[in-house]
Amino acid sequence: MPTVTTNFSSDNVTSACPEVINAIVAANAGHAGSYGADFYTAQLKDRLCDVFETEIEVFPTLTGTAANALSLASVAPSFGKIYCHRLAHVNTDECAAPEFFTGGSKLIAIDGANGHLSVDLLEAAIQGAGNVHHAQPAALSVTQACETGTVYTTEEISALAEVAHAHDLSVHMDGARFANALISLGVTPAQITWQAGIDVLSFGGTKNGCLAAEAVVFFKKELVGDFAFRHKRAGQLLSKMRFVSAQLMAYLDGDVWLRNASHANLMAARLSETICQVPGVELAFPTQSNEVFVTMNVDLIEKLRNQGVEINDEELDGKAVRFVVAWNTPSDEIDRFAETVLACAKENI
Amino acid sequence: MPTVTTNFSSDNVTSACPEVINAIVAANAGHAGSYGADFYTAQLKDRLCDVFETEIEVFPTLTGTAANALSLASVAPSFGKIYCHRLAHVNTDECAAPEFFTGGSKLIAIDGANGHLSVDLLEAAIQGAGNVHHAQPAALSVTQACETGTVYTTEEISALAEVAHAHDLSVHMDGARFANALISLGVTPAQITWQAGIDVLSFGGTKNGCLAAEAVVFFKKELVGDFAFRHKRAGQLLSKMRFVSAQLMAYLDGDVWLRNASHANLMAARLSETICQVPGVELAFPTQSNEVFVTMNVDLIEKLRNQGVEINDEELDGKAVRFVVAWNTPSDEIDRFAETVLACAKENI
Amino acid sequence: MPTVTTNFSSDNVTSACPEVINAIVAANAGHAGSYGADFYTAQLKDRLCDVFETEIEVFPTLTGTAANALSLASVAPSFGKIYCHRLAHVNTDECAAPEFFTGGSKLIAIDGANGHLSVDLLEAAIQGAGNVHHAQPAALSVTQACETGTVYTTEEISALAEVAHAHDLSVHMDGARFANALISLGVTPAQITWQAGIDVLSFGGTKNGCLAAEAVVFFKKELVGDFAFRHKRAGQLLSKMRFVSAQLMAYLDGDVWLRNASHANLMAARLSETICQVPGVELAFPTQSNEVFVTMNVDLIEKLRNQGVEINDEELDGKAVRFVVAWNTPSDEIDRFAETVLACAKENI
Amino acid sequence: MPTVTTNFSSDNVTSACPEVINAIVAANAGHAGSYGADFYTAQLKDRLCDVFETEIEVFPTLTGTAANALSLASVAPSFGKIYCHRLAHVNTDECAAPEFFTGGSKLIAIDGANGHLSVDLLEAAIQGAGNVHHAQPAALSVTQACETGTVYTTEEISALAEVAHAHDLSVHMDGARFANALISLGVTPAQITWQAGIDVLSFGGTKNGCLAAEAVVFFKKELVGDFAFRHKRAGQLLSKMRFVSAQLMAYLDGDVWLRNASHANLMAARLSETICQVPGVELAFPTQSNEVFVTMNVDLIEKLRNQGVEINDEELDGKAVRFVVAWNTPSDEIDRFAETVLACAKENI
Repeated sequence: MPTVTTNFSSDNVTSACPEVINAIVAANAGHAGSYGADFYTAQLKDRLCDVFETEIEVFPTLTGTAANALSLASVAPSFGKIYCHRLAHVNTDECAAPEFFTGGSKLIAIDGANGHLSVDLLEAAIQGAGNVHHAQPAALSVTQACETGTVYTTEEISALAEVAHAHDLSVHMDGARFANALISLGVTPAQITWQAGIDVLSFGGTKNGCLAAEAVVFFKKELVGDFAFRHKRAGQLLSKMRFVSAQLMAYLDGDVWLRNASHANLMAARLSETICQVPGVELAFPTQSNEVFVTMNVDLIEKLRNQGVEINDEELDGKAVRFVVAWNTPSDEIDRFAETVLACAKENI
Repeated sequence: MPTVTTNFSSDNVTSACPEVINAIVAANAGHAGSYGADFYTAQLKDRLCDVFETEIEVFPTLTGTAANALSLASVAPSFGKIYCHRLAHVNTDECAAPEFFTGGSKLIAIDGANGHLSVDLLEAAIQGAGNVHHAQPAALSVTQACETGTVYTTEEISALAEVAHAHDLSVHMDGARFANALISLGVTPAQITWQAGIDVLSFGGTKNGCLAAEAVVFFKKELVGDFAFRHKRAGQLLSKMRFVSAQLMAYLDGDVWLRNASHANLMAARLSETICQVPGVELAFPTQSNEVFVTMNVDLIEKLRNQGVEINDEELDGKAVRFVVAWNTPSDEIDRFAETVLACAKENI
Repeated sequence: MPTVTTNFSSDNVTSACPEVINAIVAANAGHAGSYGADFYTAQLKDRLCDVFETEIEVFPTLTGTAANALSLASVAPSFGKIYCHRLAHVNTDECAAPEFFTGGSKLIAIDGANGHLSVDLLEAAIQGAGNVHHAQPAALSVTQACETGTVYTTEEISALAEVAHAHDLSVHMDGARFANALISLGVTPAQITWQAGIDVLSFGGTKNGCLAAEAVVFFKKELVGDFAFRHKRAGQLLSKMRFVSAQLMAYLDGDVWLRNASHANLMAARLSETICQVPGVELAFPTQSNEVFVTMNVDLIEKLRNQGVEINDEELDGKAVRFVVAWNTPSDEIDRFAETVLACAKENI
Repeated sequence: MPTVTTNFSSDNVTSACPEVINAIVAANAGHAGSYGADFYTAQLKDRLCDVFETEIEVFPTLTGTAANALSLASVAPSFGKIYCHRLAHVNTDECAAPEFFTGGSKLIAIDGANGHLSVDLLEAAIQGAGNVHHAQPAALSVTQACETGTVYTTEEISALAEVAHAHDLSVHMDGARFANALISLGVTPAQITWQAGIDVLSFGGTKNGCLAAEAVVFFKKELVGDFAFRHKRAGQLLSKMRFVSAQLMAYLDGDVWLRNASHANLMAARLSETICQVPGVELAFPTQSNEVFVTMNVDLIEKLRNQGVEINDEELDGKAVRFVVAWNTPSDEIDRFAETVLACAKENI
């Protein structure tokens, strides 16, 4: 049986891509203004204006949790309601950071097929505006690519944002895997964000080749408000901010981010296809980004673990098994892994 | 058609009972220590020890929202999860006060028939303990009588508390209509609280004859901790606290609270019985306290409104109509109201 | 030696005045809309518009701590600086309620003679605007009458407010003893508040004859914003709000509040004059409201305590002894008390 | 006149040291567990146990603001008082992050010569324990090296900690320039921390050669409590945490941190000596770490600015000018800078 050397447990167990590491080394030369008053941070804003084909404001952060929680604190008051899918990372995996940074808002967890919010369920959930007894509808948060490895189409996002805006909600996108979604959809960054009604984006870099680099990107500048103070107070304004901005610049330069995501998506498709041919393995959700969700029986899971494969029981309420492919996963590792699954399954029968 | 003079929209639109008002007038004589260092507040503690047949700690508050939110802040850290029914008052009607007073905890809304939590759904919902990515399971909150006008049996409470305690959760009871539940169940205060596993209780007075008097009652004294500071800081420590404690003493003296609740429950039963004989009116939930929930068609609702009956569209997601009977609702008003409903319904046909 | 039956330890150890108690009894008749949708609350707004000769918004609260903390939360962001005197009640006696309700603002404690802020010290303290490293200057809070029993003149308030507004700060007045200040100054409510630059007032009733009734009064309506939600979420929106509004109406009707304060101030002046004739007793601050601050030696304090006089060691950093006169303190009690002090002092020599 | 190429405005405008950058590049090889479950983070704990000669717990963070605010939130309740020097970074330069992360605690700003707290002033400030009206004394925070560039002796720290512990306060050290203080004092890490009574330390790396790496180090393990959740919720738990831990390992390996600090302190002493020989330049505080504080007249400041020297007006209330020397400032730049100052001063005369 082939040995598994790759780790499909997450896209954050792998290294940063060479362009990003090289950029950090290069940024280390000489002096630079501190707390964001540096060349790289200034450039980053201009660059993201180009990428998104509009005027934006950007605040780099170190983690996705910080990007999300600070974004949400900019769109929801402390007594606000933030609507999101039940499975949303902001709802399940950030140890109540959004509630903390907003000062006590409520995340309203909505169900929906494939991990997607639907217009109907969203519309039904938005209640209580103007009534002092109820927390106040304030924001919608969508994850793109979402927690089931699928992507929202531009039409879906537009329709959801339209409902939200009709109720005076702001719209946030958790783009931890934004590049993977872009590649999957074949759309431009502008099309899937502000043109579809997104007001503020958590722009992810870490999962797709950065070392630690995310950014809050405001499309609706009225929302920026006092963000600079919240950003500093959160401990997210690095004194040597150039090192975060340099990562993001290298990530964007020469379309590194899109190349990384293309590769990850392609390899995920290969993984999806091959392991689903194994008897007893079934696709739980369409593979539309760099995450593959399948169901497999407990025996097979156990055998894979015995082969050194890390499998997290808590994904999606324990209803599916997740394999995540990274920007640098080689195709032969995919194939070896598929062989391992097959071998385990055969013994299984 | 008879005129409706009574208001069934809530039990807080009526007056305080004479014993309570008289107690306020009496408490106004002479000096008394401020901030709870008075005779009435000292007595109140002893009295509640008797009522609950155990050592308790008590902190009077002015509103149920404050009692609930402060109670929950004593049992859940700022990154805690508080499990409650989807319809729970703490979840839907307190403008995110629990989230605010806890500093950002998450209320996990669970569904369940008749507005009751079930052991199975609670057990399934409790997840993530010890995992830093997840808000931490901290407390269970049950409402007694609950938001559908029904009551949890002692066995139900015990079973839920057992699940909670098995997961190291504390158990809070929102007893805004606690006296009504006691009467309905025919149990003692001790049996339905600490003997059934309740750790802290929001003891309600306002809806059952007080002017403005609630209390946080701790059965598990280890939970008291720094409550006195949270209580003061919340603006709930009255300088002339004697006026709240005196209300609660008068409420308890001579079983005024139980008499008030008995009357309200009896009248609710009468209301329930009579209006459910009207064609097109159906009981939505069993009438087990002083609230009657029925379904009726939109035309009938409209006609009742034309007769001056206040009907709130937002109760229980708009799925039932609520009529609340108070400690002092006279039986002839119940009968007149039933006649009104019948008269409207007949025109209806 | 005469027996001391009166308590000068605070103005909250005495009873509510008969007009207020009668109003509570009267308000108890019949039904009333809940949560402030009642006749008394509606009237209260109109009445306060008359009293202050301008359009205001009013939100009744139950405690001064709540009124102050909620007021400050309406004028300072969570990363704001609130400038106040070092001795200000909001800074020293509210268990960090302002910090809690604002979500973490900083109270900047400024020194100043007689417990008064000065233009120069305020001007010097206001720093850091626009710099993300610093909490942001947001509000000024002044106490009227202030913590030393003295009052700010209209000119003082105007000058401080002018500095504050020049720096874009909002101006809050803690008016726990507002009526006493009015009487002392001989000005109108309008003159000492909005005409002098006050944006929001904690209007006190409890210390001057109410049972438990305070109010947040907004003169600058742009500041109201989402206050209704904060008010509810704080547990300060009573279901039977009529009982608070009725107190305040009775307090204002027929100038009860001014009569009460006049009496208290007059009696405080009498107390001040008489006890300062006792050898070894010296006035610590001019007596300008209903509080008398004196210095006396430790032996005399001890002898008074032996006579049953309550003396708080912690007032003003333990640098003076405070005697507070209430709306109903009879002149003969003042005289008896002065005799007691004299008698103790004589033994002292 | 020689050109100034060096920047003395802060120690965070310079690059990371080669050992740290190399460690980042090296850590990038292969897979590693995410969220701190990696080889480097495990090693870091062992290494710090060695460095501090005791059992510790460590949580890496990205910024000093986060390290300080999270440390303080582990030692102070939301209604706590944190005593610190008026000039303390936590009090003046973190945009109220401590207040935010604690949920509303009060920083009690104490004055004291040379930026040092004294036992007497600390003792006098600690008040109100057990009184519900007052925020509760909870913690002491000292900065080492402190905001005036001086260091507390071991005896000073011990004496302050003794006062704090006698009042049941926890003791926090803000060690943003901890290595510089160690070198200056010639003591061991153990001697100046837990042996002197420090309970929790913000261990700084960024200002002394790291890219972005700080750590919260607990000596008193009972304080760790729920820190892991607060750390995650703050957005400080990096998914690729290995990159922070690797920085800190490289920083500690082969005493890089001590070498860096030695150099900086030595160069600061040289700068201090040389520029204080310039007429009109006077030392404001003894130069005991890598910061030099001097007074100089406005004309000289202006002339230096014209030469491209960055001078911050807001340091220490604008009462001194600060020049900060970094781990890599070459001696000839010190000398050139001193010549510049001399040249400007001469024109000045």
